[in-house]
Amino acid sequence: MATVKIWTDEEAGADPRVQAVFDDIRATRGSDFVNNVWRALANQPDVLEATWAQVKAVMARPGALDPLVKEMLYMAVSIANGCEYCVHSHTASARAKGMSDEMYSELLAVVGLASQTNALVTALQVPVDPEFKV
Amino acid sequence: MATVKIWTDEEAGADPRVQAVFDDIRATRGSDFVNNVWRALANQPDVLEATWAQVKAVMARPGALDPLVKEMLYMAVSIANGCEYCVHSHTASARAKGMSDEMYSELLAVVGLASQTNALVTALQVPVDPEFKV
Amino acid sequence: MATVKIWTDEEAGADPRVQAVFDDIRATRGSDFVNNVWRALANQPDVLEATWAQVKAVMARPGALDPLVKEMLYMAVSIANGCEYCVHSHTASARAKGMSDEMYSELLAVVGLASQTNALVTALQVPVDPEFKV
Amino acid sequence: MATVKIWTDEEAGADPRVQAVFDDIRATRGSDFVNNVWRALANQPDVLEATWAQVKAVMARPGALDPLVKEMLYMAVSIANGCEYCVHSHTASARAKGMSDEMYSELLAVVGLASQTNALVTALQVPVDPEFKV
Amino acid sequence: MATVKIWTDEEAGADPRVQAVFDDIRATRGSDFVNNVWRALANQPDVLEATWAQVKAVMARPGALDPLVKEMLYMAVSIANGCEYCVHSHTASARAKGMSDEMYSELLAVVGLASQTNALVTALQVPVDPEFKV
Amino acid sequence: MATVKIWTDEEAGADPRVQAVFDDIRATRGSDFVNNVWRALANQPDVLEATWAQVKAVMARPGALDPLVKEMLYMAVSIANGCEYCVHSHTASARAKGMSDEMYSELLAVVGLASQTNALVTALQVPVDPEFKV
Repeated sequence: MATVKIWTDEEAGADPRVQAVFDDIRATRGSDFVNNVWRALANQPDVLEATWAQVKAVMARPGALDPLVKEMLYMAVSIANGCEYCVHSHTASARAKGMSDEMYSELLAVVGLASQTNALVTALQVPVDPEFKV
Repeated sequence: MATVKIWTDEEAGADPRVQAVFDDIRATRGSDFVNNVWRALANQPDVLEATWAQVKAVMARPGALDPLVKEMLYMAVSIANGCEYCVHSHTASARAKGMSDEMYSELLAVVGLASQTNALVTALQVPVDPEFKV
Repeated sequence: MATVKIWTDEEAGADPRVQAVFDDIRATRGSDFVNNVWRALANQPDVLEATWAQVKAVMARPGALDPLVKEMLYMAVSIANGCEYCVHSHTASARAKGMSDEMYSELLAVVGLASQTNALVTALQVPVDPEFKV
Repeated sequence: MATVKIWTDEEAGADPRVQAVFDDIRATRGSDFVNNVWRALANQPDVLEATWAQVKAVMARPGALDPLVKEMLYMAVSIANGCEYCVHSHTASARAKGMSDEMYSELLAVVGLASQTNALVTALQVPVDPEFKV
Repeated sequence: MATVKIWTDEEAGADPRVQAVFDDIRATRGSDFVNNVWRALANQPDVLEATWAQVKAVMARPGALDPLVKEMLYMAVSIANGCEYCVHSHTASARAKGMSDEMYSELLAVVGLASQTNALVTALQVPVDPEFKV
Repeated sequence: MATVKIWTDEEAGADPRVQAVFDDIRATRGSDFVNNVWRALANQPDVLEATWAQVKAVMARPGALDPLVKEMLYMAVSIANGCEYCVHSHTASARAKGMSDEMYSELLAVVGLASQTNALVTALQVPVDPEFKV
């Protein structure tokens, strides 16, 4: 259960600011599906607009990183932060963008390994090598 | 400062298990540089051997993900976990593997955005959409 | 599901130490409602007593910070730590103490922004400015 | 040490996008001081502009929450996320905005308590009370 | 719900690599019960094999730490990392290995206290005492 | 550098509340050494007194868990939370209480493994087995 109301399409339709964001999500993604995070953020139009603008700018704009790579980076951060919803939504997005089973398996191996060595390094308080300095 | 001794090459040379791992790190990476995390783990030969075996298997073995993508995933997890040493070492590795300034900039944007939306989703306790179910 | 039994009022009534804490919670809050965290902690009377004493001292004692501000700080930490129950209970408490929709929206914006810049700063390992030194 | 170059005023002056952000930071804050996070972000003008725009919108715009309350929420998140630089910079900002020693002491007490009860609740996996449902 | 299929015994039986791991889990633990984490990892045989090999080596091999102490350390990390499944599975394992109610109560007190003082120390950015240097 | 003043013995001597806590720390531990966390908390006498009272009650009182086991649990949480000072102080305390190199090595192996499997379980969103229910 959420701490806020999850807006239906009908409720969104009654609020021009929310409707405009939902319209843009659908146009940008080429899909009628608006997932729950946007329906929850609809309670705070300022945060909804700012968050969608940032997601659109960062994730939908062509650049140096492949869209699938960006989605896998999003997955990695969401796993490390323990965000259940985010893990589900970005795993689904990565699959939709072409993440194969083998890629998923390797991502899990890297994320698991990184979590392990992060802990070991923190335990040992390893000093940064001068070679890594800029 | 570390919680353990950082082993010099001379000290490593006096311990066959440690020397064997250092030799394999050098051979695998094609470089004489052995960074501090291995010199710290040298105090615990069991952990040193197991960790290096896992790093070698996960990071050095060819697979479905590009080595640079794996390194950027490692960076993303290390940032999310707040591991200073790991951020430095994996940022340096990613650069050595070809991460351009533009790629780095986009990685930062994705990691920052993911951290922000992870927090918003956790705050709102957004329910997982049925569409994301396997 | 919990890892421990959630105590009913009847079970609490059979244990004087637990009953005393439940009585004090009700008297301090002016409400008959005892939420589940206390019913779970009832299995460990030492931890129950120590935790309630600390909550009472920190949250219920008048001081320099407004009770609503304290509750919003509690929310912010609970979100950052990803504690589902805590997010729910402290969001409900903050609303009960007067958090308006606009205040909630601004809290979300600050928490989201802080999470993002925390990640960026960690990624860049920004050195502390001398001006911030005490 | 940072993973990127910390830009001097002279270097910023040679890049119009960076200079424009630094100018706006100075004008918005009414101070000549530009702290290191902006000098580090200067390497990524896209991230610099987007981050400053968001900080300005969230932190400098009048709203329902007092500026000091926003700064203390920022502190709370930064502490929970373990971001050294952020803890320093936002503690300094909160003091500059009027955080008294007594307020600081109470903030520490709330943040410490929240961290403790977050851990206990996670350990016990306390189920959310139906009373907290929206 | 998981992001992957949870394998039944019948499905595992059709994949020799998965079946071999399930067989070894049962033989090592002296129990027919194979818990869900292994049934989820079965989708990635490489990760399944590597993870089980590591769990077996670390948790099932006799050493200097009592098996119950190792299990309680696992609980402590899982609580701190906010991993719901892990908290449940390792609390159950610790109980099966002899964790009494009193020991559980003391573990909770230590984990709660550590979380609190970790936060305070991070807030205050306490410098490491020279006496703690190796 | 700390966000607050680190009190000297002379400064502590001028404040009866602080001096009383420092005296009790020395008497309880049988050592003249008062480490920096207490010298930082001295700025907030309320937090200083409450924190020391809790540390004394949880860590110094005999119970079902061995003092060394409690110290190692404290280490595990501090590592997972990434608290540099806490890792140093509790590693030093555990050594002083008898943690051998072999025990330390095994602790590191457990903490590393737990961090890895926590991440994998979170990535896969493994459902809790009914067998783990209380």
